[in-house]
Amino acid sequence: MEQKSAPKSVIRRLPMYLRILDDLLANDVEIVSSRELSDETGFTAEQIRKDLAFFGAFGTRGTGYNTSFLRDKILKIIGLDEQTNIIVVGAGHLGIALTRFNIRQNPYVNVVAIFDIDPNVIGKKIADIEVMPASKMKEISVKHDVKVAVLTVPSEHAQTAAEDIVKSGIRVIFNFSLSKLYVPSSVYIHNADLSIELQSLIYYATSRVVI
Amino acid sequence: MEQKSAPKSVIRRLPMYLRILDDLLANDVEIVSSRELSDETGFTAEQIRKDLAFFGAFGTRGTGYNTSFLRDKILKIIGLDEQTNIIVVGAGHLGIALTRFNIRQNPYVNVVAIFDIDPNVIGKKIADIEVMPASKMKEISVKHDVKVAVLTVPSEHAQTAAEDIVKSGIRVIFNFSLSKLYVPSSVYIHNADLSIELQSLIYYATSRVVI
Repeated sequence: MEQKSAPKSVIRRLPMYLRILDDLLANDVEIVSSRELSDETGFTAEQIRKDLAFFGAFGTRGTGYNTSFLRDKILKIIGLDEQTNIIVVGAGHLGIALTRFNIRQNPYVNVVAIFDIDPNVIGKKIADIEVMPASKMKEISVKHDVKVAVLTVPSEHAQTAAEDIVKSGIRVIFNFSLSKLYVPSSVYIHNADLSIELQSLIYYATSRVVI
Repeated sequence: MEQKSAPKSVIRRLPMYLRILDDLLANDVEIVSSRELSDETGFTAEQIRKDLAFFGAFGTRGTGYNTSFLRDKILKIIGLDEQTNIIVVGAGHLGIALTRFNIRQNPYVNVVAIFDIDPNVIGKKIADIEVMPASKMKEISVKHDVKVAVLTVPSEHAQTAAEDIVKSGIRVIFNFSLSKLYVPSSVYIHNADLSIELQSLIYYATSRVVI
């Protein structure tokens, strides 16, 4: 396996910059300094300059970044300059919540279908998106060139669902199930580990140190 | 505001070490090296040694860490050596999903109540936990010494709910709503920014670089 060029941590920060740039553009702010981006994100200005320099130098020393140009650059780097088709696998409470949330909030992705194995939910609509049988996953995914699957099924079905996803030609899984998934190494799995996040929060809740 | 002693990134990694130590103990593994922890987590052995050294040197050079001792230490550092009482605010799809998930998965926290403002759900039970009116939040939170609130209400109710949480004496909010919350600086908010996570995943789905 070749090493990816940009570290995960950098890729994870880019959408945060993007959100701020969106806000700035909505307020007609044409230039932004790394210092201002630092104030908004909490990352150091040095870190931000380093992150952005990773993809080429976009800023002007002493002036800052052109907001619109930087936004376009980041969209291109991430791959958000065109809408990305995704699917949601699992139409339970989590699948429903994420679909609604996602549809409302995220202009860069398009949920083409939700898949489930329960005949009681297949055919229903969630936020205007049809719930389809898992057996149709490959057909739909190929047709719409689906790039990402959001996996929200219960643990006991997660591995089977992951295999369906891989067979459908999808290479990125955002895994909300609690299972460890076994997939080919060409598939990238990102675990949404809410339990881990919650545990680390308890440190702030119980430690005596001032936050 | 005083600077916290441990960086956020370290605190976020501790529960990941904990999970591995739990697995090792379940398999009667008494000693673990930073190299083995590295293989399991993907962090470098050096990073792991540095993280753990932050709280005192627990390992023996050339041998490794005593699994059980290290686990106990991490539990104490995070504050998981005693069960932490939490509440879930919002009994919609996300609140239900997180409560069920959380209850099943997390031995260190105890959800004492779920709060909502909808009379149709108040009084119902989710995973054996009662849904109570938001007006009871302070009473219940003080009684059970609640440390963390998981906020899952829709955006339009998020600020009001956050104020209820703060008035209830809770200092840590795990925010799943899409709103920016305005709270006193003594309150620690962690945003579960699933939209940002999804966007950064698209990089891996659309870039041509080998993962």
